[in-house]
Amino acid sequence: MAHQCVVVRIKMKERYYDDLKVGDRFKSEPLGVTEKELIEFAHRFDPQMFHLSRRRAERSVFKGLIASGWHTAAISMRLFVQTLNFAEGAIGLGVDELRWPNAVRPGDVLTVETEIIDVRSSRSRPGHGIIRLRNVTTNQRGELVQTMLASAMVPRRTSEQQPFTVQQAAKREFRT
Amino acid sequence: MAHQCVVVRIKMKERYYDDLKVGDRFKSEPLGVTEKELIEFAHRFDPQMFHLSRRRAERSVFKGLIASGWHTAAISMRLFVQTLNFAEGAIGLGVDELRWPNAVRPGDVLTVETEIIDVRSSRSRPGHGIIRLRNVTTNQRGELVQTMLASAMVPRRTSEQQPFTVQQAAKREFRT
Repeated sequence: MAHQCVVVRIKMKERYYDDLKVGDRFKSEPLGVTEKELIEFAHRFDPQMFHLSRRRAERSVFKGLIASGWHTAAISMRLFVQTLNFAEGAIGLGVDELRWPNAVRPGDVLTVETEIIDVRSSRSRPGHGIIRLRNVTTNQRGELVQTMLASAMVPRRTSEQQPFTVQQAAKREFRT
Repeated sequence: MAHQCVVVRIKMKERYYDDLKVGDRFKSEPLGVTEKELIEFAHRFDPQMFHLSRRRAERSVFKGLIASGWHTAAISMRLFVQTLNFAEGAIGLGVDELRWPNAVRPGDVLTVETEIIDVRSSRSRPGHGIIRLRNVTTNQRGELVQTMLASAMVPRRTSEQQPFTVQQAAKREFRT
């Protein structure tokens, strides 16, 4: 009799407005930044010498190459998006108090921590809610490299979008 | 007798803190955004379906592909950096009230207008000044796609950094 192999794949949980409450906290996976990526981003978007050239950066006030603050912001967005994983996505409404207390340098490894600080229904879109959050990005030494507050519009769960239970997911993904 | 060709290249003006006053305004060159760039940025930094896939974006609230707000911010930084062209660069201290009133779509052409709203000496670095500015990014139809306030530390002109006169520049760049 043939040996049966059962593989159960659980889809990564998609999050909705209804899943969040004030005080919830999330922590991303870490993500490293290479010198090559840092310089490439700067060439496209922030061509200033302390982001572009190791040699010239060493003579700047930073005493070495640093990432553009907008690169730090973009990496932080990626970590936030992956961690929260909103169904249909989160629509950014605005950002306040965006700060870069310490520079990001080649080889740094960044992590984003998110705290939900407010939740409310959307007045203009009943199928959505508005969340207010604080995102804090730290490097491998726990130093703050970015802090910000943001508001985003995220989808509510409708009756057709009930989350799968593990059993339902297993049934859908059953393989022999 | 051989014909002599004289080419004079004037280096683009490098700006210092001393060159700016409250109320000064600057307008960047226009810069276009392609669908390819938009999707590429999203894959790296903002992997949400309305930034990644034209087909899926058409079923979203945006009814089509839009750029990540962080891509709009990065493009705006590039236009700002090129336009102001600070000697030794501008060090971003923080950003407030970052908003994206309208989405950027493939084929849009963006322009950044900068207004200096405050200038003051740096207490911590006497060789620098702090500027506060408002950056407004518009598309080819004049619609606002991003607004923000920012503070940056920029170098003062010292006695060794007097700007070249046209004659000095010509002398340095004289070619036959």
